[in-house]
Amino acid sequence: MDVLNRDQAKERQALQDTIYVIGGKWKLPIINSICNGNKRFREIERSIPGITTRMLSRELKEMEINKLITRTVTPDTPVSVEYESTDYCKTFGPVIMAMIDWGIAHREKIKER
Amino acid sequence: MDVLNRDQAKERQALQDTIYVIGGKWKLPIINSICNGNKRFREIERSIPGITTRMLSRELKEMEINKLITRTVTPDTPVSVEYESTDYCKTFGPVIMAMIDWGIAHREKIKER
Repeated sequence: MDVLNRDQAKERQALQDTIYVIGGKWKLPIINSICNGNKRFREIERSIPGITTRMLSRELKEMEINKLITRTVTPDTPVSVEYESTDYCKTFGPVIMAMIDWGIAHREKIKER
Repeated sequence: MDVLNRDQAKERQALQDTIYVIGGKWKLPIINSICNGNKRFREIERSIPGITTRMLSRELKEMEINKLITRTVTPDTPVSVEYESTDYCKTFGPVIMAMIDWGIAHREKIKER
């Protein structure tokens, strides 16, 4: 019983940690977009319906600080800025896939709402 | 290329649907707690550090409306109220497990922050 309780506490903590890191409405869609090959701000913005320029800008800055993405500026004319996912970012693959699977399986139920 | 784009759009929609249903900081920890056998308000509350009575109350009501949980009142003395997860709720198992796995694998990295 103690072992069970310890494991549950550890799992609860792990779940809350994950929600803390990827919490909010936009981080996973942004990670998914960048992992799908979108590199430029406008490309990422266009690929996520509902996100505003301001929100995307804020999230990308936060994700860069948290080492989820890298931002590379190439001093061409015009200057080119590209975002790429880090290896750390890619560890969210299984979480994103589980959520995509859920969404696909429950599309009809959600549309009823 | 068109097929690829269509799939990405479908996956993006599925991901956003899932985030819409389980979005926020508390729904998954509450689902996890109830699936772990906690049935009463105070048990659930105690099992989720950081949640307030007010937030738990609001989330449980919303989750009952959305058929994620059932609320059963037994007219004993004192009245007993028990929450249980629905089969629909249990479909989030793979999402929760993927997030727990991620949290356990990245505990050290998160603690650095």
